[in-house]
Parts: sequence; C-alpha cells; structure tokens
Amino acid sequence: MPLDGIQALTFDVFGTVVDWRSSVTREGAALGAALGIERDWAQFADDWRARYQPAMSQVRDGERPWTTLDALHRLNLGRLLERYEIVGLSEAEIEQLNRAWWRLDPWPEAVEGLQRLRTKYLLATLSNGNVALMVHLARWGGLPWDAILGAEFSQSYKPQPQTYLRTAEALGLLPEQCLMVAAHNNDLHAARRTGLRTAFVHRRSEHGPNQTTDLAPDSDWDVVAEDFVDLAAQLSC
Amino acid sequence: MPLDGIQALTFDVFGTVVDWRSSVTREGAALGAALGIERDWAQFADDWRARYQPAMSQVRDGERPWTTLDALHRLNLGRLLERYEIVGLSEAEIEQLNRAWWRLDPWPEAVEGLQRLRTKYLLATLSNGNVALMVHLARWGGLPWDAILGAEFSQSYKPQPQTYLRTAEALGLLPEQCLMVAAHNNDLHAARRTGLRTAFVHRRSEHGPNQTTDLAPDSDWDVVAEDFVDLAAQLSC
Repeated sequence: MPLDGIQALTFDVFGTVVDWRSSVTREGAALGAALGIERDWAQFADDWRARYQPAMSQVRDGERPWTTLDALHRLNLGRLLERYEIVGLSEAEIEQLNRAWWRLDPWPEAVEGLQRLRTKYLLATLSNGNVALMVHLARWGGLPWDAILGAEFSQSYKPQPQTYLRTAEALGLLPEQCLMVAAHNNDLHAARRTGLRTAFVHRRSEHGPNQTTDLAPDSDWDVVAEDFVDLAAQLSC
Repeated sequence: MPLDGIQALTFDVFGTVVDWRSSVTREGAALGAALGIERDWAQFADDWRARYQPAMSQVRDGERPWTTLDALHRLNLGRLLERYEIVGLSEAEIEQLNRAWWRLDPWPEAVEGLQRLRTKYLLATLSNGNVALMVHLARWGGLPWDAILGAEFSQSYKPQPQTYLRTAEALGLLPEQCLMVAAHNNDLHAARRTGLRTAFVHRRSEHGPNQTTDLAPDSDWDVVAEDFVDLAAQLSC
C-alpha cells in the first residue's frame, strides 16, 4: 500500500486550505467602500498575490535576510497602493488591509475534512506563512492544527528542501511518514524530492473563474482528491 | 493596570501544565509489572528529571550541538537503566519508556483553565520540550495550544533569552504583550529579564509530598494564581 506508515499530514495553506482570492477581494472592497475608493479588488488581490513568489525569491536567493511573509506582504502592499493610486491611508488602515491575510476563509468543506483527518493523523501546516499569520488564520477559520511548522520554523521558503525536511524532523518522523497535501503540483514535486508522500487536492477556482494552472495533477501523486472530505474518505477517516 | 495589552499567554509545561512525576512513575511501574522488575519508580522519575538540567546545560554551553529533549531524555535513560540495574530491555521497550514523557497527565484543572483562557488570549507553549513531545502531550491531555514554540523553534533552551524573545516575535508580539505562566520562579525571572509579563501558578506537589522548591513566589510577579482556573478568573476569562 502506498500510504502505509503515514503518521502526519502536512498542509500547504494558501489556496489549498483557504480561499485567499475571495477573502482578500472582500477585504479590499470593504476598505474601498469605507473610504469611497472604487477599484477592481479581485485584480488587486491577484496583483498582490503575484508579488508573493518574487518577494520570497529574494529571501531564498540571499538577497534579503530572513523576512516573514507578513512583512513581505506589507512591502508588496506599499508598492501596490502606489500602483493603484490609493493614497492617504493611515498606517493603521494599511496594517488592517495587510492583515486581510489573517482573515482568509477556509474552503467550504475544509474544516470538516481536517476534523476527520485529525482522528487518525497529526496535522501540521507546511506553509510559507509565518507563525502569527498561521495562528490567526487558524483562529479565524477554526483550523485544528497540531503544530504550525513550515517556513518560519525552518527559516526557509518552499520549495527549498529544508522547509519540508525540518517539518518532518520536528514531528519526530521520517519524510516518508508524512503526506504533503497541496493543490499545487510544484509544491508536491518539491515535497516528493525530499521523500514526503504526496496528495493533490483539486482547487479549480483558487485563481478565480479563468484559472489556467493546477487544473489537474501532472504526476502520479500518491493520492488525488476532489477536496478534503474526499481525502478523508480515501484515507479511511 | 499591570496586565493591559497582553495578547498571548506562553506556558512552561513540565510541572506547570502537566504532572510529570506521577505520570512517569506510573509508566515505570507499568513496565516493571510487565517485566517483573521491582524498583522505586517515583525515585526513578526523580532521578530521570534530575538529569534534565545538566543535559540541557551541555547544549546551552555549546558542548553538545542542538539536541532535542526527546533525545536528551533517551541519553539519560540509558544511564539510568544501568544505575538501576535494569537489563535486557529491547530497544522498542526502552523507546516506549522514553515516550513516558509523551503521556504526562495535565493537572486536574489545567484543561478547563486553558479552555477559558483561550477565549481571550493566544496560547503557546514556551517549554524546553521539542515539537514532537509537545504535540503528543497536547493530544494525550487535550491541551488547546495555538502554537508550539519555545526551545526547538528558537534552537535554545530556557533560561536563554532567545527562547523567550523568539517566541514572542513568532507570535507577532512585543515581549510585554506576552504573559509567561510558570510554576517556577527561575523561569519567571528569565522571562521578566526579556520583557515578558509574569504569572506564577502554585504547583506544590510537582516534586511529590516533600517538595522544597517553588512553594511560594519569590518576587512581585504580575499575577500569582492557585491554579489555571484561578488564573482564568483573575484574567476575567
């Protein structure tokens, strides 16, 4: 059996557990309504997210010292506000908008799936989000994590191998005792290279109605699931 | 108000949240009964615990590279088994005994207190225990942590300042926004030196009926509580 011996499930979070795009769009629209600013907030969310990988690359490449995702989001937000010509926000209003990333809603069936999976496995985050961000997301959405691991714990950003390896090690497990759960093929390729097992979960609208990426598994992942409830069922939880 | 602005409670765990002595004694006695070995298992528990600080000191002093508490417990257990002339255990039996530290019962009111405190504050471990140990303790006792921080996260052992400082930082908080909860004056002195607020909780039988240490607060801690339910009441939770 390809899933023998798995003791922990490690999760990508943005896009896999939570619907960042709808949530950030909603937060932007709420701020816009309060301040009388009209913009395309879904595009704003997409543009903000598009700056995510380049910012982490600077850390991965050593051009920038270790910087949390909250801080990278804030840096990117500053530039985005300029580009969208949104001026006159107070520092508190900007920080409130930055913390949109603390208030992302889980996908509708995610919490039920996690609760079922937790009856049999340890559940840990293996996200590029920092601890504070993950803790507040968990509180916001009721996500039942046993541990917040991943980037800040390992001081590295996925897909660097140590993000996966240090997470497994912290759980007292070998990589092959961990099942990486993600809606992104690239994340699973990196996880597999470090020895973790892999589960692809479909999130066909993470990037909105016109999504072109990760619409299907691109390799023979150990599990392919429609959603977290289906994943729980396939793992007999 | 001395407690204004507190957003997180950070917890010492061994002795403060869980009753390690009774639990390790019970685990030793169970193994002894199964194998027909008679020993003073409470003394065994005390002797095991007595090797805890010296082992961590080696790491703090740089004589030993970073080593988890699970691994230090295992090293100390090997020597203890020799001293108690307990021979012939399989590696699996020794590992099972080492994992007595994963099965420590919470003090009777601890979970109720934590649940109440969690309605108002983030709760994180700030223990010298490693992540796997803390995760299994939480599962064993139903401890509702938001995050497992402390030693392994910071790669340092209390009372080193970075154990406290890195924990506060990971929560996205200033030290003074964190309240350190411990049954040990020394832990609180170290926490206060790094800027955390301090709460002393009485655990008068941590070391058994003849306890001589930490029977009373030895400084003007911000809070002094009889137990976690009292702490919750004092914090209006």
